[in-house]
Amino acid sequence: MLDKVSNLDQINNGHNDIDRADHTITGAQSLLRTLLDCGVDVCFANPGTSEMHFVDALDSVDGMRCILGLFEGVVTGAADGYARMLDRPAATLLHLGPGLANGLSNLHNAGRAQSPIVNVIGDHATYHRSFDAPLTSDIEGAARPFSSWVRTSPNAESVATDTAVAVAAATSAPGRVASLILPANTAWSTVDSSTPTPRAHPNPPARPSDSVIESAAAILREGGSTALVLGGRATREAPLALAGKIAAATGADLLAQTHNPRISRGAGRVEVTRIPYPIAESVALLEKYDNLILVGAKAPIAFFAYPDRPSTLYPPSARIHELVRVDQDITYALDHLVDTLGAGSLGAAVADYGPPDMPSDGPLTGRTIGAVVSAMLPEEAIVVDESLTTGGSFFDDLRHSAPHDVLLSTGGSIGFAMPNAIGAAVACPDRKVIALESDGSGLYMPQALWTMARENLDITVLVFANNRYRILDNEMFNVGAHGAGPVASTLFDLTRPTIDWVSLAEGFGVAAVRTETVAELGDALRTAFAHSGPMVIQIPL
Amino acid sequence: MLDKVSNLDQINNGHNDIDRADHTITGAQSLLRTLLDCGVDVCFANPGTSEMHFVDALDSVDGMRCILGLFEGVVTGAADGYARMLDRPAATLLHLGPGLANGLSNLHNAGRAQSPIVNVIGDHATYHRSFDAPLTSDIEGAARPFSSWVRTSPNAESVATDTAVAVAAATSAPGRVASLILPANTAWSTVDSSTPTPRAHPNPPARPSDSVIESAAAILREGGSTALVLGGRATREAPLALAGKIAAATGADLLAQTHNPRISRGAGRVEVTRIPYPIAESVALLEKYDNLILVGAKAPIAFFAYPDRPSTLYPPSARIHELVRVDQDITYALDHLVDTLGAGSLGAAVADYGPPDMPSDGPLTGRTIGAVVSAMLPEEAIVVDESLTTGGSFFDDLRHSAPHDVLLSTGGSIGFAMPNAIGAAVACPDRKVIALESDGSGLYMPQALWTMARENLDITVLVFANNRYRILDNEMFNVGAHGAGPVASTLFDLTRPTIDWVSLAEGFGVAAVRTETVAELGDALRTAFAHSGPMVIQIPL
Repeated sequence: MLDKVSNLDQINNGHNDIDRADHTITGAQSLLRTLLDCGVDVCFANPGTSEMHFVDALDSVDGMRCILGLFEGVVTGAADGYARMLDRPAATLLHLGPGLANGLSNLHNAGRAQSPIVNVIGDHATYHRSFDAPLTSDIEGAARPFSSWVRTSPNAESVATDTAVAVAAATSAPGRVASLILPANTAWSTVDSSTPTPRAHPNPPARPSDSVIESAAAILREGGSTALVLGGRATREAPLALAGKIAAATGADLLAQTHNPRISRGAGRVEVTRIPYPIAESVALLEKYDNLILVGAKAPIAFFAYPDRPSTLYPPSARIHELVRVDQDITYALDHLVDTLGAGSLGAAVADYGPPDMPSDGPLTGRTIGAVVSAMLPEEAIVVDESLTTGGSFFDDLRHSAPHDVLLSTGGSIGFAMPNAIGAAVACPDRKVIALESDGSGLYMPQALWTMARENLDITVLVFANNRYRILDNEMFNVGAHGAGPVASTLFDLTRPTIDWVSLAEGFGVAAVRTETVAELGDALRTAFAHSGPMVIQIPL
Repeated sequence: MLDKVSNLDQINNGHNDIDRADHTITGAQSLLRTLLDCGVDVCFANPGTSEMHFVDALDSVDGMRCILGLFEGVVTGAADGYARMLDRPAATLLHLGPGLANGLSNLHNAGRAQSPIVNVIGDHATYHRSFDAPLTSDIEGAARPFSSWVRTSPNAESVATDTAVAVAAATSAPGRVASLILPANTAWSTVDSSTPTPRAHPNPPARPSDSVIESAAAILREGGSTALVLGGRATREAPLALAGKIAAATGADLLAQTHNPRISRGAGRVEVTRIPYPIAESVALLEKYDNLILVGAKAPIAFFAYPDRPSTLYPPSARIHELVRVDQDITYALDHLVDTLGAGSLGAAVADYGPPDMPSDGPLTGRTIGAVVSAMLPEEAIVVDESLTTGGSFFDDLRHSAPHDVLLSTGGSIGFAMPNAIGAAVACPDRKVIALESDGSGLYMPQALWTMARENLDITVLVFANNRYRILDNEMFNVGAHGAGPVASTLFDLTRPTIDWVSLAEGFGVAAVRTETVAELGDALRTAFAHSGPMVIQIPL
């Protein structure tokens, strides 16, 4: 299907870096050449035997930055964070079915974030598969539930075209996970080195029709209680500014999906209210609206089903109007709507700069942590937030801080923050990345710390250590279960033994400190923000 | 398909532990009752919101030991180790598609080990799926490549029967991975508590025909160069003893697959030669054989394909005779073959007790580590071996040690040893478990250490820290790639920064020590073996 959206040009960028006497290159070299010609120049990798020719080719084809992860979830999560910041794909390099499997949970988040990613998954040589060797598995079958596009390259000659199509699939609007499976013999067999490298041009996103935009304008002019619900790339600075003009012209509220890939935030940005995660709060927020205009978002639904609670969060009487789908041109739609409403000359209300005063000292709680971080947040920081129960107020706390971007877990798969922070830091080396991490969540992929150290990435990780799956205490109540029993409670308890994050971080080569008070946290952040490189701050709660 | 092999009895074991005024139980309680009645009384778990009713039910249905893992690969790997030691399934509890995904790589190994496992995977409520909430994914699709049986229970009434069928599927010969998906509303809805609990009787393994056994006897009597290749449960003590009689009667050699689920080993056991992993060595070993008789094993094939190397390891002229498939009755086949050969009264040659002298001191190398471990190995130890390049000689080194079992990575998915050690220790609390772990491999699932501490499991972990993916240096050469370039070499390098396993282990609450010499290793092992509980020994190489 996606083949149809890719227009393959035949170009030759002249790869003088490959110089073999027999004028051939390996399939692996062909893959690398094509990735580079298609603009993919970062690869997050955890290779094995079947990927050795890819690894070998890194020394003969210049230009690919290859970043090692000790675990595949780190690799795929990093590719997600990278894509969210640059809107272009990194490659991953994964080792057969089990290597892919270890990366799937963060691919789930990436798919939900509309992140373009090109997974390269090594497989056995094509002729070896029928022997059902121990590492054989149905890689296509494993990839499919978490990929928009899956293909196995059948031979070395096909690798270049398949790679270009994979990039086209990944970068077709709004961004997708493409999985290209490379049998070992397609990587080690050779092809003519003078064959031009194909390049892929994904189709641009489609535009919503004029009538759809005019309908939205009509609803907004009617004057009922109306909110724009922003999703996908609608929460970036430029479309937010357009949404702000619409709000100024019509009095509509601006809401964002609970879990957006990236939200531009802080001083100078148009403010948006995230739909809360707790179902009681989200239903209470939405019950007043007569009209919801969807801008790259879905009609608001509950994250989980709960007994005797609705799956949809908005009142049954609400009118739902889809202005623009997530895979369409969101900025065009908003721009056109601004014009239709004659709002182009209006100033959008933006947040002013004015974080709360830095608290002088005191115990660390969600509230005081939020105050400290919002007071000290560096300009243009990237905040990767997986703070869950501790960080319920962080998003609001940071509204008047320095301008920043917030990355959230779009798919609900846990352990995304530290891997995503890696990708964001690689994508934006001049910006400070701050991972707000729960202890339970961070323990899914602590190996991310090592890659931060290895690449000296400018990431500060705050670990909120309440030694408990606290969110499950809440959820046990929400689903209507008793949850009062000793066995249930024990399963949420991380105190036997407690986990020492300072020790873990140092084990992975990252400097770490434990802070017990507001003043200590302030000191630790000053240290972290004064230098470039990773640091872990454990905050007992 | 597998439904046909399950004969569901209707029984009622009288669960007096559930006492609700309305004479109903939840689907989750029904699930727990059925698991317990089918003999499944250990559950390795990493639950989330959709599993809260299962967790809640643990306090009202007595008898399930629920063991928490911080990461799902620990959970599934533990279930694999448990099954290998007890030949019966543990349950797992996993959170939707991403939670399952994190557990798939160790399920791959478990499937290849023919380990019975009942995965219980929570899902959204059935009516909530169509809303495509963030955590929605194709769970059946994700489970299928790594499961022999997959089913989604449609409602609370179906849960008991589906659970019994899942256990039947898991325990049908030779042992399988069964994945039962439980939508949240099937867990929280109620059913009549007096409904009898179904129980599953899997079919016993089929027996090979007399003619197949007689053909094997004829080949053995012919007197060519013949080897029995043992796989599946053929490498356990009792079938090994039978194979030893056959060897004594016929002069046949006894070989084992490279990666068997469990091999009985040491003093008093019939010795078996493992087919080596390096392809040059395995081809050299097998080239002399005219006949290979397969006993629960496949005809020997290469673990990976290599350019200009065969996929099959045996000479093209060799005759392959399959005595018994892995899903058939291996002990019956060997017993019958012994009778046919008139070998019943022969004594099988077994290894005598006589480990090498404990070396006094010196540097630690693969050889000296093997000598120390073999000299000190406790009686009936369970050795989980993922030592890769460091441990090339360990299997041979331990041949005259105290009797023990060896568990190996059957599917080639990395990071199996520490999770498997958890399961083996839970299954066999009176036996010392020793995990021989490479540093690279151990970093895939270091969270396993925390569960060892939490459950005070009697596991000694030796971490061989060469700070390198050393095996990939070898594999780069084997696949015929150059691999001499600086970028390729950097991708195998774990020295920037080096990982401090003592710090990691202590971070997870496990006592740890670093040993630099033979004497220090001896001291550390004496400490570890003198008490019950987990300990990590980092061995720099």
